Amino acid sequence: MEVADLNTVLRRGHPAAERCLSALGRRLYFPGGVTAQAAEAAGCPLNATIGQFVDDDGGAVPLPSMARAIDALDGREVFLYAPQGGRKDLRQAWQARLREQTDGPLSLPMVTSGLTHGLSIVADMFTDVGTQVLLPDPGWGNYNHIFGTRCGAEMVPYSVLTERGELNLSAIAAALDATRGPAVLLLNFPSNPLGYTPTLEEAAALVEVIRAAPNPLVVLCDDAYHGMVWEDGLAVDGIFPLLAGADPARILPIKIDGATKELFFFGGRVGFITFGADGAPGAALEEKARALARATISSVSAPSQAMVMKALSAPDLAAQQAVLRDVLRRRYRVLCAALERHNLSVYRFNSAFFALLRVENSHAIRRGLLQDGVGLVAFPGALRLSYSTIPEGEIDRLVAITASHISR
Amino acid sequence: MEVADLNTVLRRGHPAAERCLSALGRRLYFPGGVTAQAAEAAGCPLNATIGQFVDDDGGAVPLPSMARAIDALDGREVFLYAPQGGRKDLRQAWQARLREQTDGPLSLPMVTSGLTHGLSIVADMFTDVGTQVLLPDPGWGNYNHIFGTRCGAEMVPYSVLTERGELNLSAIAAALDATRGPAVLLLNFPSNPLGYTPTLEEAAALVEVIRAAPNPLVVLCDDAYHGMVWEDGLAVDGIFPLLAGADPARILPIKIDGATKELFFFGGRVGFITFGADGAPGAALEEKARALARATISSVSAPSQAMVMKALSAPDLAAQQAVLRDVLRRRYRVLCAALERHNLSVYRFNSAFFALLRVENSHAIRRGLLQDGVGLVAFPGALRLSYSTIPEGEIDRLVAITASHISR
Repeated sequence: MEVADLNTVLRRGHPAAERCLSALGRRLYFPGGVTAQAAEAAGCPLNATIGQFVDDDGGAVPLPSMARAIDALDGREVFLYAPQGGRKDLRQAWQARLREQTDGPLSLPMVTSGLTHGLSIVADMFTDVGTQVLLPDPGWGNYNHIFGTRCGAEMVPYSVLTERGELNLSAIAAALDATRGPAVLLLNFPSNPLGYTPTLEEAAALVEVIRAAPNPLVVLCDDAYHGMVWEDGLAVDGIFPLLAGADPARILPIKIDGATKELFFFGGRVGFITFGADGAPGAALEEKARALARATISSVSAPSQAMVMKALSAPDLAAQQAVLRDVLRRRYRVLCAALERHNLSVYRFNSAFFALLRVENSHAIRRGLLQDGVGLVAFPGALRLSYSTIPEGEIDRLVAITASHISR
Repeated sequence: MEVADLNTVLRRGHPAAERCLSALGRRLYFPGGVTAQAAEAAGCPLNATIGQFVDDDGGAVPLPSMARAIDALDGREVFLYAPQGGRKDLRQAWQARLREQTDGPLSLPMVTSGLTHGLSIVADMFTDVGTQVLLPDPGWGNYNHIFGTRCGAEMVPYSVLTERGELNLSAIAAALDATRGPAVLLLNFPSNPLGYTPTLEEAAALVEVIRAAPNPLVVLCDDAYHGMVWEDGLAVDGIFPLLAGADPARILPIKIDGATKELFFFGGRVGFITFGADGAPGAALEEKARALARATISSVSAPSQAMVMKALSAPDLAAQQAVLRDVLRRRYRVLCAALERHNLSVYRFNSAFFALLRVENSHAIRRGLLQDGVGLVAFPGALRLSYSTIPEGEIDRLVAITASHISR
């Protein structure tokens, strides 16, 4: 419902509720976008709306180490409270993974209730009403909701790609130059909805742009799709490790990642927030984040943490991940071929779970596709296709149906 | 760490981080209190700090229906995303439970990531900087953190009990009369740390006091310990059902409850937020709460929700709960006798997991008890004893050691 309508309903039907609303309470409405469109496409035989990964029958595709964990969990680690900030062994195991990506300073990763929770903690810690948050465009709609609706920050979109399909360094530089004070730069590689990861050269150039920023800057790396990279020569570990030597007087790197995509545990809601700082400042930032977790959710689901810990303890975890990623890479290759065969205009993509098609009237096309049993997600001037949810053998048919609707 | 010290550490060691902090970010520190004191008492053989329920060996005591669920969960309901707002079947099943308690208006309960998440949603929806929140004293320390530190609301404590150990109706009436505008009245019965539930007569009188409040009022019922009532003649369903006929121009009742204590699933982090409103206003409030969940955690742990659903589907759930509650009731009776035998001064208690002892120098006594392997939680002028974590056969020894430290 529109926010004005929601408030009108309350003013008329429950005046006490309306009178008691905070400024935030007044701004709230449930955002449309992916979750609403996915609900509408729930019955579609070809439902490519959601960025989770399912097998050819729509079943879950867990890592074997995690599927086995359900039967092998101890009562204490399921039913009793997990510690504030998360299980210590889990936090240390995740830090060891990050250590393989960077020699730079790392706080002890704090467990969050999914990656959204980590983003909302950063929003609460680093944005006031009017703080500028530089966001990728096209980008995940929930960023606006987390930073804009909830915290009142000013959304400053930057174009991720140039017309030629290269990383738009000058757009990011211009957005940084236009900051009025401390700001947040949000980076999301591999990206949703674009499915883009920069080349190694682009990543190095981006770091130079960031180092030249005129104001103190939080560089927030949403690395949800870490490892889901399908071509060579790309910055597989994203930008966070490249900021290791940044001047703490000017730049604070923060990494948000977790089990949701990386370990194929979409339902688990286990994420991590890690500051690119160690020693006393790293511990102070971690304590502030833990204080916010205490004030928003207290602790994170113990069974979910136990399952992630089982996965991280599996000696063959990397091989297990590779098996599932190979399924996704095959779907990616089939999709690339189908898009070319049907001559569809697509943003450059090379990673994550998505391809983003350039179309006019995206909302009208989406509604038409629902009639033919195809679920895609509409963005302004674009349609997002999640190949992570479509069997390899159905991808060509999905693209053919989509192409027929676009050319109408 | 003190908040000023945290900010100093950042200013010196990471100036960019300090410059970028929001007003909320500046206020944050990790609160002492229960979680910090429980960590200190982790090695105590008699650790009565935490309000969870363990058996005589410190093991988890799950409901059988939930313990069986771990082996019986389908991959889809564990590994794939749960819907925004929670599983529909779970929400409906919880509403059916609430329907047994009240004929009044109910929104569809929304699943939250533990009860703290529900409280923080209410804080975000209904408090601005300076909004008055009337809180029980003594009360759970995290209320101050959720409403005060995080949202900047004004904390207005009211004494729960009179000197004679009766519900302090005049204190609540005076606090309501002193409100300057829309406010939040937080009620917590059975209460933490008091372990108190009002008599039926006290509950009816409290409702009259609430109805006479001069300003629009959110009445927030934190019913975490629903059902944990050990004496007759008490308001076992709390205050929420008694507000069923309240004027929507003046009062909005909200119920926060969940599986954490009620279904003995401390690690699960499954709570519910239910508004005492239906029709369009109920749906508008539910949408606003769902919008906040989307902006803070997105969805709630799928394995945890699946396990709660299994418990709610068990035809003998009530009997399973009764078995575990009987263990607690026996511990309660043994504790009452021991406290009387050792002639300790205790606040009137009749429910939940706690007894609150009146002492001077509570922090010094707590530290002394740690040396003797006894973990209690210090409040100003009081010590909280969680008998839910102590075997029945150890309670007398725990009280004897505690008494010896108090009389020193």
